[in-house]
Amino acid sequence: MEATEKELKAILAEVSDLNRASMVLAWDQETNMPPGGVESRGQQSAALRKLAHERFTGDQVGRLLDQLEPRVEAAPFDSDQASLVRVTRREYEKQRKVPPEHVAESARCAAHAHPAWVRARKDNDFGHFAPYLKRNVELSKKLAEYMGYDKHPYDALSDRTEPGLTTEQLDRLFGELKAAIVPLVKQIAGNRDAVDDRCLFGDFDPEKQLEFTHQLTARLGYDYQRGRQDLSPHPFSVAFGPGDVRITTRVRRDWLPYCLFSSIHECGHALYNQGISHDLDRTPLWGGSSPGIHESQSRLWENLVGRSLPFWKHFFPELARRFPSLKKADAEAFFKAVNKVQPSLIRTEADEVTYNLHVVVRYELENELLEDRLRVEDLPEAWNARMKAYLGVAPPNDTEGCLQDIHWSGSAFGGFHGYTLGNVAGAQLMEKIRRDLPDLDRQVEAGEFQTLLGWLQDNVYRHGRKFTPNELLERVTGRPLVAGPWIAYVRGKFSALYGLKEAAARPL
Amino acid sequence: MEATEKELKAILAEVSDLNRASMVLAWDQETNMPPGGVESRGQQSAALRKLAHERFTGDQVGRLLDQLEPRVEAAPFDSDQASLVRVTRREYEKQRKVPPEHVAESARCAAHAHPAWVRARKDNDFGHFAPYLKRNVELSKKLAEYMGYDKHPYDALSDRTEPGLTTEQLDRLFGELKAAIVPLVKQIAGNRDAVDDRCLFGDFDPEKQLEFTHQLTARLGYDYQRGRQDLSPHPFSVAFGPGDVRITTRVRRDWLPYCLFSSIHECGHALYNQGISHDLDRTPLWGGSSPGIHESQSRLWENLVGRSLPFWKHFFPELARRFPSLKKADAEAFFKAVNKVQPSLIRTEADEVTYNLHVVVRYELENELLEDRLRVEDLPEAWNARMKAYLGVAPPNDTEGCLQDIHWSGSAFGGFHGYTLGNVAGAQLMEKIRRDLPDLDRQVEAGEFQTLLGWLQDNVYRHGRKFTPNELLERVTGRPLVAGPWIAYVRGKFSALYGLKEAAARPL
Repeated sequence: MEATEKELKAILAEVSDLNRASMVLAWDQETNMPPGGVESRGQQSAALRKLAHERFTGDQVGRLLDQLEPRVEAAPFDSDQASLVRVTRREYEKQRKVPPEHVAESARCAAHAHPAWVRARKDNDFGHFAPYLKRNVELSKKLAEYMGYDKHPYDALSDRTEPGLTTEQLDRLFGELKAAIVPLVKQIAGNRDAVDDRCLFGDFDPEKQLEFTHQLTARLGYDYQRGRQDLSPHPFSVAFGPGDVRITTRVRRDWLPYCLFSSIHECGHALYNQGISHDLDRTPLWGGSSPGIHESQSRLWENLVGRSLPFWKHFFPELARRFPSLKKADAEAFFKAVNKVQPSLIRTEADEVTYNLHVVVRYELENELLEDRLRVEDLPEAWNARMKAYLGVAPPNDTEGCLQDIHWSGSAFGGFHGYTLGNVAGAQLMEKIRRDLPDLDRQVEAGEFQTLLGWLQDNVYRHGRKFTPNELLERVTGRPLVAGPWIAYVRGKFSALYGLKEAAARPL
Repeated sequence: MEATEKELKAILAEVSDLNRASMVLAWDQETNMPPGGVESRGQQSAALRKLAHERFTGDQVGRLLDQLEPRVEAAPFDSDQASLVRVTRREYEKQRKVPPEHVAESARCAAHAHPAWVRARKDNDFGHFAPYLKRNVELSKKLAEYMGYDKHPYDALSDRTEPGLTTEQLDRLFGELKAAIVPLVKQIAGNRDAVDDRCLFGDFDPEKQLEFTHQLTARLGYDYQRGRQDLSPHPFSVAFGPGDVRITTRVRRDWLPYCLFSSIHECGHALYNQGISHDLDRTPLWGGSSPGIHESQSRLWENLVGRSLPFWKHFFPELARRFPSLKKADAEAFFKAVNKVQPSLIRTEADEVTYNLHVVVRYELENELLEDRLRVEDLPEAWNARMKAYLGVAPPNDTEGCLQDIHWSGSAFGGFHGYTLGNVAGAQLMEKIRRDLPDLDRQVEAGEFQTLLGWLQDNVYRHGRKFTPNELLERVTGRPLVAGPWIAYVRGKFSALYGLKEAAARPL
């Protein structure tokens, strides 16, 4: 390897090691750390994040990039070399804008805010979390200032997480989605009894649920030699390297989908991370294209695969063997049950149709917090009002309201639209997959996932962060992000499920 | 705080954060990491260790120490300030001798050697571990060269872990112990049937064992708000800060002492770490005086407390309620059973009398490996011959032979005598405790451990690493490390247990 590239890669490897170490610390905090550990953990995370940031944003990286850029001009856009230089430059310029003290302070605050969020949820006491949230809002505003923006702080933050997606594109997207969802939800409400989900409620031994999801995720292709599944209050997936990609899940004894779809969802993230080319290891190219594209994979596996009829034709008999109360149902009834549309309080438990409305609520409120149009202490009330307006339901308490998601306990503002991008990009990819693999339904029904996984590895996973969301979608589907395929998928699936003939026939 | 001291403390805090983060990585590797994580974990550990080492041994720390030394001359020896400067200087000079590349290489090798050791044990295949051990021997020899020594590489390594203990002192100690143990073991062998330990074997539900040790350790004073107990093949204790001090244990369904005494042992370490003054946090003073003195606390709680008659008078009824097969025994029979003397294969399961002979075996072989008098490939045979010679037992396989302990899978050579120091120092401290707390037995029998824990916190724990082993023992007991108290304790206890009147009457 050429000396300059080698030198750059050595620095990037060290930065990657430090960032991964701090992710181990975060995983441990979320799954194992005793309550007393918060103070020290905050210090440790801050030290690691600060060092990684300093090392990455030092002048040396800039100099090496200056030297390498002319040399890779002739290399193909998607080559490892050209991509490394291009993506490293992009990240470098962005991160250079943020002072190391801000990075350390953010890590420290997140370590303290997280247990406060857990406690606030436990005690249903927003007041306990409010001061930490205030601090995180301030840090996010500061970060937006460092990054620079024209109109909205959110734009600056969004560009960090979903590079290349413009506000115009987002606005158009959200507009199209709203126009499609609102009438569909209404139509479904008019025929609400078409789907009965009572079989999902009962008494399901948690150990057996975990055992089932363990086996199911292994069957989808999640390699447990390079992973593990643990419990945590808010499921997540994390990758410490190609050989250590973990997922967490959660269980409710009385409601089956809680554990089931959390596991498949996180497994989707993990399949992505386990499928990244090892050649990209310890560089800024190792990871997902963006959180939104990452989410496209968790949602693709959770919904487009995991909530499909062929999927349950295969897995329902196994599930019913473990949980005999299910024997009253069959694969088709179960498939219908897990797709029941019902405006509800919790985003992660929302059906596919109403899910994006949850995203809109948080997206709007987050913007208002960042622009001082909403005070943190007024958030619970604003949350409840917005839920009532968009979904027609009002949370009875803040734990099921604005405290439900982990994100605001970190300083990860400006990334929530990634969830909607995930839904939309997942459907866009699936449209192409169905063209390339006309046999897909039969395979899924036979419990065969290798061809699908292989397609995704080849077209998406192995490329890591080489491409921005739009670059990736253009490359694979011929178009940047568009709402059409998702709208068509949702209309088709739910019109059939709820017997809504007109909607199904409506042109896109 | 004065500016120079503040500057030094800021660097030391960062070094401490990095070291603690790498301990989190090690804990995770030992308890949770999937097999595939080895490669990345080795890289991460190496990066952290190297950075911590570079930061600590930089010229800046030396300059700050130069400035601070004259200013603390008048401060009391045991003051926080004087101790910080003194101990930091000592560590600084030692670590300056080691190049950062060696530190990184050691961390990387340890990360790879550990799973190889686990697999070798599982498959009972020393050959699988041998190349890693060879590498660790070479690294230890190199480290001894960096440190410098007169006669034996072991001296250089020992001074790193047990500062201030001279080879003469060690030789005298081991000589006295051998002279006392060998005849005692013979006498006991002549009256072997005086103790019956059959009640310890049976079918004991692992979950119940873990629940019992959880409650027991909490009663001893281990604060679970600042700790947790997990399973690992080789139990250990680790501290990531004052609020996060963890222990691990292990369970055998068929033999009760395995889990019981591992838990009490590690709890002893944890009580030490939880008792260190918070004022010393994130400095080189936060930790135990030395591994040997740390071991004195695990052994004190495990043996001098946990294998005493008053202890079981208190806990036996609770234990027997959980495990009804024990109801055939009583507190006194159980106390006798857990003190049965029987030369055996595994150090960590050895009785108090023969334990130190296990240490001698490894101490000698380690010296021979370091001095090229023994080749790694010949280790299993040498181990077995030495066991036969000193303990009269020969391991049927290497898993129960030279593969039994984790230490050689790290590059932690030259510290094994710490286990014997622990036994001896523990008894020396206990002699003083009994003078200061004449009521101790009654308290233990009543399940009251606060006074004992308070004494230890006040005299030992809170001081952290302010004092070397000899300094600490002189300060507390009026003498440096001596073998007398341990010999007296063991003679007294086991003569009574085995009805050996002469031995008990023999002068020390």
